[in-house]
Parts: sequence; structure tokens; C-alpha cells
Amino acid sequence: SMYMSTGLDVWTMMNQIAASVNAVNLGQGYMSFPPKEFIKKAAQNTFAESTHNQYAPPRGRPALLGQLGARFTEKLGRPIDPNSEVSVHAGANEALLSVFTAFLEHCKGHEVILMEPAFDQYTPNIIMAGGKPVYVPLRVHPNKNPSENVISSKDWKLDINELESAVNENTRILVLNTPHNPVGKVFTREELEAIGAVAERHNLLIVSDEVYEHLTYDVEHVSIATLPGMWDRTITVGSAGKLFGVTGWRVGWAVGPEELIKPTLSAHTRIVFTSNTPLQEGIAASLKQAKENDFFNIQRQEYQCRRDRLTAIFDDVGLPYVAPDGAYYLLANASSIRIPQDYDFPQFIEERGDNFKLVYFFTKEFGVSGIPPTEFYSDAHKNLAKDYIRFAFCKTDKELEEAKRCLQKLK
Amino acid sequence: SMYMSTGLDVWTMMNQIAASVNAVNLGQGYMSFPPKEFIKKAAQNTFAESTHNQYAPPRGRPALLGQLGARFTEKLGRPIDPNSEVSVHAGANEALLSVFTAFLEHCKGHEVILMEPAFDQYTPNIIMAGGKPVYVPLRVHPNKNPSENVISSKDWKLDINELESAVNENTRILVLNTPHNPVGKVFTREELEAIGAVAERHNLLIVSDEVYEHLTYDVEHVSIATLPGMWDRTITVGSAGKLFGVTGWRVGWAVGPEELIKPTLSAHTRIVFTSNTPLQEGIAASLKQAKENDFFNIQRQEYQCRRDRLTAIFDDVGLPYVAPDGAYYLLANASSIRIPQDYDFPQFIEERGDNFKLVYFFTKEFGVSGIPPTEFYSDAHKNLAKDYIRFAFCKTDKELEEAKRCLQKLK
Ligand SMILES: CSCCC(=O)C(=O)O
Ligand SMILES: CSCCC(=O)C(=O)O
Repeated sequence: SMYMSTGLDVWTMMNQIAASVNAVNLGQGYMSFPPKEFIKKAAQNTFAESTHNQYAPPRGRPALLGQLGARFTEKLGRPIDPNSEVSVHAGANEALLSVFTAFLEHCKGHEVILMEPAFDQYTPNIIMAGGKPVYVPLRVHPNKNPSENVISSKDWKLDINELESAVNENTRILVLNTPHNPVGKVFTREELEAIGAVAERHNLLIVSDEVYEHLTYDVEHVSIATLPGMWDRTITVGSAGKLFGVTGWRVGWAVGPEELIKPTLSAHTRIVFTSNTPLQEGIAASLKQAKENDFFNIQRQEYQCRRDRLTAIFDDVGLPYVAPDGAYYLLANASSIRIPQDYDFPQFIEERGDNFKLVYFFTKEFGVSGIPPTEFYSDAHKNLAKDYIRFAFCKTDKELEEAKRCLQKLK
Repeated sequence: SMYMSTGLDVWTMMNQIAASVNAVNLGQGYMSFPPKEFIKKAAQNTFAESTHNQYAPPRGRPALLGQLGARFTEKLGRPIDPNSEVSVHAGANEALLSVFTAFLEHCKGHEVILMEPAFDQYTPNIIMAGGKPVYVPLRVHPNKNPSENVISSKDWKLDINELESAVNENTRILVLNTPHNPVGKVFTREELEAIGAVAERHNLLIVSDEVYEHLTYDVEHVSIATLPGMWDRTITVGSAGKLFGVTGWRVGWAVGPEELIKPTLSAHTRIVFTSNTPLQEGIAASLKQAKENDFFNIQRQEYQCRRDRLTAIFDDVGLPYVAPDGAYYLLANASSIRIPQDYDFPQFIEERGDNFKLVYFFTKEFGVSGIPPTEFYSDAHKNLAKDYIRFAFCKTDKELEEAKRCLQKLK
């Protein structure tokens, strides 16, 4: 099986390297700060209730379904029935796997279109469900003078003709990710309309991974499901871990029309049976309180400060980067970094190619660790990412300060 | 896909029926009583630690891996390396799916042997991973006078010749479940030796689902992995939800040699990425305290009382049953129940056959709900279970009292 030869996943590998050289870890996208008090309290309070320690219905705890229904009713401007149009999952990842499992079949040649860079779990999840991923890379069209150090994530664009050429009679699903990991691009309404038109022309299911929906900086986040005609063909995936800064809680969801959610829920029931109950209840209570205390706006401002801190560092040291409009990642262009010819790389890095070597070298020499974005590309397109390192800014001021100090060496 | 037409899972269906007629719910195996204070506290305490809210390493949190390593070192009488021989999962179910995903391939004809009755998730999990389930039913050989109302779960036996006949060159895995759901059978050392010999002769991987390991009543629980020569071919699956009475926490694990756990962990990483962190930490702390306060022995005695309460009810009202030596289920033989010819069944029950009708009728007429064990059988063998109803006794004294009162009607 494909799992026999698989070594460490990139996240664990990079965390271990960061720890081993005591680097500032801006790699994996987890929060290095605690969740707000009301979120912790919401979780702690739930255990007192006897039923909150036992199996949830596979679809999800009623309290959470109710909150999600209300959230999406508001967002989509149409009433959502949480008992047929929502399913709760063991993280957004398991929601995506459930969708792929529900709508793809083995040995049928079903294809799924991914835009590159594509979050590294999409490809194995699609293959596991029997599908074949087909890759369309975002292309960089900088508006600005290329001598400038900053290009906008807006300038990473999907070529609609390239997308349309990738579609054939076997294509079943088109995966969208907005805000986008790792580019930080937030797709505009016009871009989504063009993508939606392709999906409509070829009768594709759209899977919209919107786990960073709440983190956009001075741009509007549009859910493709809200565009005319799109609801019926779209499953929108969300994440409590990302919404509340608790990535370890493993609560995600899928929202869409009943015909799409029903098979998704059936697959989910077989994959994990149900998501954990206490943290579903913790998230239900947190969603309720978040509305009351304007949490999402406050949180957005905090992340915008973190982003600005990180971009200021790269501005200062002169490393070019892609300025993110959303999510909590930044792609820095490290093509100026020179690695000595005789530099000693461990075998497990050497065999993963130049981009892994760049990230490894950067981590060891500058004390700040990131993720090699070639991991988000298919073999044919890895070259597009070879100069980049992805840094996460969901980190403490102290760590960002420390990163700044470390990166002075680049000057 | 197989998920398109799937309706409600049996657990949700039976819970809804029980609620709708206000029956005593002895259906799904969840605890209707709260976990012990030290377990709740262990969970509540974990949220204060910032890292305990974020992604765990896919293999599991170090504290939990350490506790599990110690537990299995003691159990197996050999040192276990938690960093290579253990993986933590999003429930035992996801551990099983990870194993099947790791060791089966689609379109290769790989077969997996299940003993019937077989927990209802095994079959879809095997099919999802590309395997074909092959069924060998346990056969009933009562020692006692058949006019007596009680037969022992010991008398449900695997015919080794029947097992061996089911093996062919495509067979890859043999699934074992001890203590057994729903029979309550605890396989003896001799039975396990005979099963192990078949696995050895045909070079099969053994997947031993031992989620009820801690609940045996006056019999010894033997892990097949501890038998000579068996470690190298066995993955043992366990469940924190069952160990601590918190089925909603979704923490399970797989233990075995590194060559077997490595691909299991790789599959797990792609299926859910990682299990939830706070409850892994809650279980780690609970395991530590359980040793100190003899929790598992005390808990075993409590469950033994519950079992005795339930068997006393059936003795009293004269309904025959299979006396369980382990787990928390009992199969009652309801063949004496007569359903009026013109009884009105909802369509979704009617279409599931006589055993579902029996359980539905019993729930409505006697006010005590169970699970139709035909759900644990393949189509070819459903007939073997048609007269039975499975009742769970992981329930409060109050509910068991109420069930007793309800069942007086049977006299
Ligand atoms: C599977 S690791 C998840 C963290 C994350 O989404 C990221 O860092 O990209
Ligand atoms: C998937 S429902 C789980 C409960 C259980 O194991 C049972 O009742 O048999």
C-alpha cells in the first residue's frame, strides 16, 4: 500500500528539526498562544454534563448544529436546516476526506481538480477515496515593478482557460481554498464567478475549503456557495480549530444542500463514527459567546497586527515575499540565500530535494523555521515553489521579535 | 458511491426510536452515568496548558504514548517502545480503519476474515479500504440442557475448520474481537492458540479489537499478541472511551511491532491527521491516576453488578439469554415474542427485516430498547440472529430498575 514506504509527515519533520536546533518555530500553523479565557472555560464547563462525555450523534451535537445553522443562515442569507444541511467532523481534514469518499469511486477514473499550491492533505485524501488529482497551478502576474520586494497575493491568479483545459468527462470535483494556504490569497467575487461558471458548464461539485474564512485583512471574504446558482453544487468546509485558535480540538464541519451532505455524513459515520462530544459542546458555547463579545473582529485585528509584524521584518531585512490578504501564512522568496556547496544535509532532507534543503539550511543558519512549499505541489510543478519558504504568523509577539533578531543576519 | 443510498446508521435510528417512545434505552453502548470525578478533572485541567489546545503529533501526545507504553509493557511482559510501537487514533474505530487502509489495496482482491456477529463498522471500514470481508459465524454449542434459559457466551465457538476453509491466497487479515461485542465471549488461551496457528500457517495479519479488555467477569482476558510468536503479526486496538467510560472523547490506539504500526500511523495521518489533544492529555493523566487508585478493578466490579442486575431481570421474567463473560452487552432470545399480524411498522423498519421489526415492537410494547443484532451479520447469515435483541448494561441502576418494571409484562 501507499502507506508502507511513507516516512514522517512534513509537519512532524519540520517541528522536530525546529526543536532540535532550538529555532523560532514559524512552521506548522498552530497557535503558540493560549485560546481566550471564554473558550477554555466553555470547554471546561462541558464535562459536568454526563451526556457530554458520551457519543455524539454522527451528524453532531444539537447545540453545535444549531450554532452552525445560525452562522450559515446569516452568512448565506438563506435559512439553513442544521439537521439536513450541516455535518460535524473530526476536523476539517476529515470533512474533506468524507466528501471525497462520498463522491468518488475507485477504479472509475474519477478526477479532482486542485489549484496549486494545494494543502498537502488534499492529494492523499483524494487518492484514498479512489480519485485522481489533476493540478492547475496559480500563476504569478505581478502588477508592481518586479524590482520591488513585495508582490501581492492578489497577483497569484488562476488562469481560467488553464482550469477549463484541465476538465474532462472524468472530472467530478473542483477544490477551492479561500483564504488560501499558503499564498494568503482571498479569491474575489469576480474570480469566484469565473470558477463557478466552469463548474456549472461541466457540472462539477465544488468543495470550498474556507477554514480561514474569519481571517481576512482589508478584503472581503466571499463564500462561493453564496453566488447565484452555486449553493446546489457546493460543499463548504469550516474548522473550529482555526476559528477559535484551538487546532488540537479536532472539530470541523461541512455545509451544503441535503443531497450533498447526506452521503458526506454517511462516509463520516464509517470513517470515525462521530467527532468528540465535549469539544463540540465547547465550540457550541464559544460560538454563542463569540457573537456577544465581537470576538471575531477582535481576533482579526490581532492577526492583522501579527501579519504586519512579520511583513515588517522581511521589509527590514530585504527578503522578498508575497503579502497575504488572509489566513496566517506568508511565502518568502529565499532565492538570494546561497548554500555552501559542501553543506551537510541529513539523508531524509537530501532525498526531498532543493526546497527542503533550503528550508533546512535556513532553519539551522538563521534560527527561524518554516515549511517547504514544494510539499504543496505535484512533482511536475514543484519547480514553481523551489525558492519559497512558508512562514506562519499565528505566533506570539515574543517569537516574532525573536525571529526579527535572528533574521538580522540576512542584512 | 456506496454512501449515496445509505440512510441513518443503526445507532442513531435506535436512539431516535427509544427517545420517541420514551423507552429505557439499553441500545447503544454508551454510559448513562458520569465518569468518575478524577477523569473529569483530568480533562478540565488540561486546557490551561497552551500546547494542549493545539495539534498533537500524529502519533500522539508524548504523555499518552508514555502511559500506553507502560501499560502494554506490563501487559505483554516485554518492553514496548511508545515512539515506534504505539499510535494514538481518533477512537478505536479510526484505528481499525487506519489498519485496513494501511494493509489492504483496492482492486487486488484482498480478503479479510470476520467472525460473526461482527461489530457493524468492520465491514464498511474494510470495503472502504479496498478489501472484501469474508464471514465465519460463531456457532452455538450449548453444554447445558437446552430447556434451560441461559446459555453461556463460552458456548459460542469458532469452528477452526470453518475458519481455515475461509482462508485462501487472497486472505490478508483476520479480525478478532475479545471480549466480544455483542456476544460477551472472552476467548480462552486455547481458542486463541488455535486461531493464532491458522494465522501463522497462512501468514495472516491479526487485528485484535480489545476495546473491552478491562471488563471481564471471573474469566481471564488474554491478548493474542502475548502468545508465543504472535507479537510480530498482531495489531492490538484499544479505546480510552471504553476504558474510562467516556465514549465521546474519541481517543483510541493501536499497538504492535514497528513494521505494522508505521504504515498504520501513515494512514492515520492522512485520515484525520491527529486525534484531539486535550482529551489525549486527559486520558494520559487518567491512566496515571487509575493505577494509583485501583480504578480498573473497582470499575470491573461495578460493571459485574450491572451485568448481574440485568441477567436477574431476564431470569425473573423468563426470557432466555446468552450470559456474557465480558464487555457490557447481553443477547436476549426473544423468539417467544409474538407480533400481531396487522402490527403497523414504519417503512424504514419494515425494509430492514424481521429482526428490526422484533426490536421495534419490543421497544414500543415493553418500553425497553435494544439493538437488532442482524446488523452484525452478513446477509447470508442474518438468519442466525433473527430472534435476538442486544441489550447494553452500561446503564444506571435507576434505568435497570425501570427496565425490570417494564419487562414484568413478559411474565
Ligand atoms: C496538517 S498540519 C496543519 C497545519 C496547517 O494547516 C498548516 O500549517 O498548513
Ligand atoms: C458505533 S456505536 C458504538 C457503541 C458500541 O460500540 C455498541 O453499542 O456496540
